Amino acid sequence: MTAEGSPDRADAPAPGLSIDAARLEESIRALATIGAYEDESTGLVGVRRVALTDEDAAGRRQVIEWMEAAGLRVAVDAIGNVFAERPGLDPSLAPVMVGSHIDSVPTGGAYDGVLGVLGGLEVVRTLDDRGVATRRPIVLAFFTDEEGCRFGTDMLGSAVATGRIPLDEAYALRDAAGTTVRDELSRIGFLGDEPIGARRPHAYLECHIEQGPVLGGAGHDVGVVTGVQAIAWYEVTFRGRSAHAGTTPTSYRRDAGLSAARVNVALRELVDSGRYGELRATMGVVRPHPGVVNVVPGRVTATIDLRNPDDGAMEAAERDVRALLAARGEEDGVEVTWRRTARTAMVPFDGAVMDRIDAAAAARGLRRTRLLSGAGHDAQEWARVAPAAMVFVPGEHDGISHNPREHSTREQCANGVNVLLDVVRRIADDGPLGRDGGEP
Amino acid sequence: MTAEGSPDRADAPAPGLSIDAARLEESIRALATIGAYEDESTGLVGVRRVALTDEDAAGRRQVIEWMEAAGLRVAVDAIGNVFAERPGLDPSLAPVMVGSHIDSVPTGGAYDGVLGVLGGLEVVRTLDDRGVATRRPIVLAFFTDEEGCRFGTDMLGSAVATGRIPLDEAYALRDAAGTTVRDELSRIGFLGDEPIGARRPHAYLECHIEQGPVLGGAGHDVGVVTGVQAIAWYEVTFRGRSAHAGTTPTSYRRDAGLSAARVNVALRELVDSGRYGELRATMGVVRPHPGVVNVVPGRVTATIDLRNPDDGAMEAAERDVRALLAARGEEDGVEVTWRRTARTAMVPFDGAVMDRIDAAAAARGLRRTRLLSGAGHDAQEWARVAPAAMVFVPGEHDGISHNPREHSTREQCANGVNVLLDVVRRIADDGPLGRDGGEP
Repeated sequence: MTAEGSPDRADAPAPGLSIDAARLEESIRALATIGAYEDESTGLVGVRRVALTDEDAAGRRQVIEWMEAAGLRVAVDAIGNVFAERPGLDPSLAPVMVGSHIDSVPTGGAYDGVLGVLGGLEVVRTLDDRGVATRRPIVLAFFTDEEGCRFGTDMLGSAVATGRIPLDEAYALRDAAGTTVRDELSRIGFLGDEPIGARRPHAYLECHIEQGPVLGGAGHDVGVVTGVQAIAWYEVTFRGRSAHAGTTPTSYRRDAGLSAARVNVALRELVDSGRYGELRATMGVVRPHPGVVNVVPGRVTATIDLRNPDDGAMEAAERDVRALLAARGEEDGVEVTWRRTARTAMVPFDGAVMDRIDAAAAARGLRRTRLLSGAGHDAQEWARVAPAAMVFVPGEHDGISHNPREHSTREQCANGVNVLLDVVRRIADDGPLGRDGGEP
Repeated sequence: MTAEGSPDRADAPAPGLSIDAARLEESIRALATIGAYEDESTGLVGVRRVALTDEDAAGRRQVIEWMEAAGLRVAVDAIGNVFAERPGLDPSLAPVMVGSHIDSVPTGGAYDGVLGVLGGLEVVRTLDDRGVATRRPIVLAFFTDEEGCRFGTDMLGSAVATGRIPLDEAYALRDAAGTTVRDELSRIGFLGDEPIGARRPHAYLECHIEQGPVLGGAGHDVGVVTGVQAIAWYEVTFRGRSAHAGTTPTSYRRDAGLSAARVNVALRELVDSGRYGELRATMGVVRPHPGVVNVVPGRVTATIDLRNPDDGAMEAAERDVRALLAARGEEDGVEVTWRRTARTAMVPFDGAVMDRIDAAAAARGLRRTRLLSGAGHDAQEWARVAPAAMVFVPGEHDGISHNPREHSTREQCANGVNVLLDVVRRIADDGPLGRDGGEP
């Protein structure tokens, strides 16, 4: 492992070729026009391309058009994942897969997921421009509903493709309007015919924006991602009693909104206690019912998002959050029920792939560091079936993301995608992966 | 003033006639079918007849049909208030007005407002059945948008009719979809041609459910309402920064949802402090934006409903709530802005009218008490232009209201409306009102 931030490494491969940074930027800009919306809270134009909506479908068709224009063979699997293959010199070899997603949160930016997909496309375009062939095929992929904010389960497409979530279970998930994943896949024309699990890559790579302040704050050009922290999502329902806000004495109230508020405050206290390491906790959804000014809320639906880089600390936090919910209900005379809608353990990435990323960054003279991802990514699903790792790119404004202010500069994007290019080439031409895997 | 609960009073008028309790119940039941909905949180059928919706319009047409069947002359004023007049023996005298409302909250019951309107109708029907004439005309009225949960201002119709809110200001109010009061009045056919302020009654009476636990808890049959407590409504906006729930370190967050939750918790602490007398505080609306599981809310819109029977304590509470909002914003790095959407001072009712209610209840042998209203009512607006008071009827389940469980028994309703009948007759046949107003 290299020292943090030191751009020196003698045994790294020479870069040879570099991507067209302007072309990459232009592709990102063009895709951002699909699902563009005026964001009232920032005054900026953001991206709203929520999974399996018409906007997502339009984005998918645009990327497929670009893939086909680059000569790739496109296939869609039964959960709507899109795979585009560039043949290798030896068709008997498993491919190197480069992937990410193009769906967004309702208030998203232009880079989240998109950088990995269009960065992968730029890698293919660069190889084509220079007539470079690789021994292994390269598969460029984007996966269905990575964000999970519509159907409640994130990394859905890659989780199905790699066997964590059964297809039938994924099909049956419903959005708030009661529409199923299967019906929406069918409606937008992405209920594909490639069987689930048909792709088992030699290695999986993903370039993504960091979505946090670490790289930018320390002046790093790229990050070598060592894994993804543990994630747990809860949907919590508070059932009290709706009542007139003017006439109901305080002692008679069973205010579901107040209970939810107390839980939100208590979650921050848990985080600040330091007892759960680097726990992060967020209540992103709060829906009081009936939700009018003069009625004490009788029912509230809320969500809790917990993250932790340490599996043990995460388990302790989950246990204590559930105890907190039970105690809250008891004390407030409110029935509190919860359902865990997502749970992934900490996922470590592959050491050999990380080393190659590190070496490529070093050879390009880039300042780099190793860091754990705070967000979930498709790579954590593919890590179950193939050696996988990620390249992170810093973002402006403390790496703000899931927000129209999300922005990485042309140079920041180019650094990450050049590293992706180098590592894809290297692994696609290599023999077996491994720290002593036949390389110089 | 009589002692609480003592059903003895020698100088009260003899009741003479009584209403048809079964007919009253049947009218209430029939009106409740208009806007009926299946309430998922209680499993009951509730009433959703929100002001100026199609359901409200259908309810209005039904009540007008009944009014006309009872021979009343119906007029609609420019804010959609409906007035139905039963002539008196002396047309030169100002009428006794009996009123309330038929609009509901989105999760309402069958009695709120309706008891006063259909109770008034039952008074007229009873007088008609027995061929009883009164010296003064009787005007039965229902007023537009008493609840205020759609356009943000309660008691709207009666406030306009009695001069507190200018007509143009009321017309311009918008609901969440941006539709104005005037457009909706016009759309549902209730933009009437009677000029505002044409009715100045000799006295105003309103029978209403208590919507609280006091009468039922102490075993009283009816309440003599002494006034309405002060009310203040605020719409509060918290502007932080939306950010990724997984990647954004806690120290970088400006979580608008957490700030709103802290305010909700602090409001209850203010109430529990006892420093503001009998303050009640409710946060009925909380709308985080974007409102998805993995995004720290960047903006929250919330409402605060404050009530206090004491004007001085209310002013102190409002001052401290505003200071709390400012301090919260400062401490959390969140911009907190507020707008006061409603404010009424404590309204005392007329002593002479209260005495007549008390006397009528005593003559019927009903257990009664005097109490202040926790909720706002149309009567508080009419109290500005005429001697006014209210009769309260207890409700089951601690007087729960704004909920499908809202229920007063046939007997409870009949007690209140019989008192209304007696007082309407008495005042409609009286000379000037007053404690020494020419009565025995």
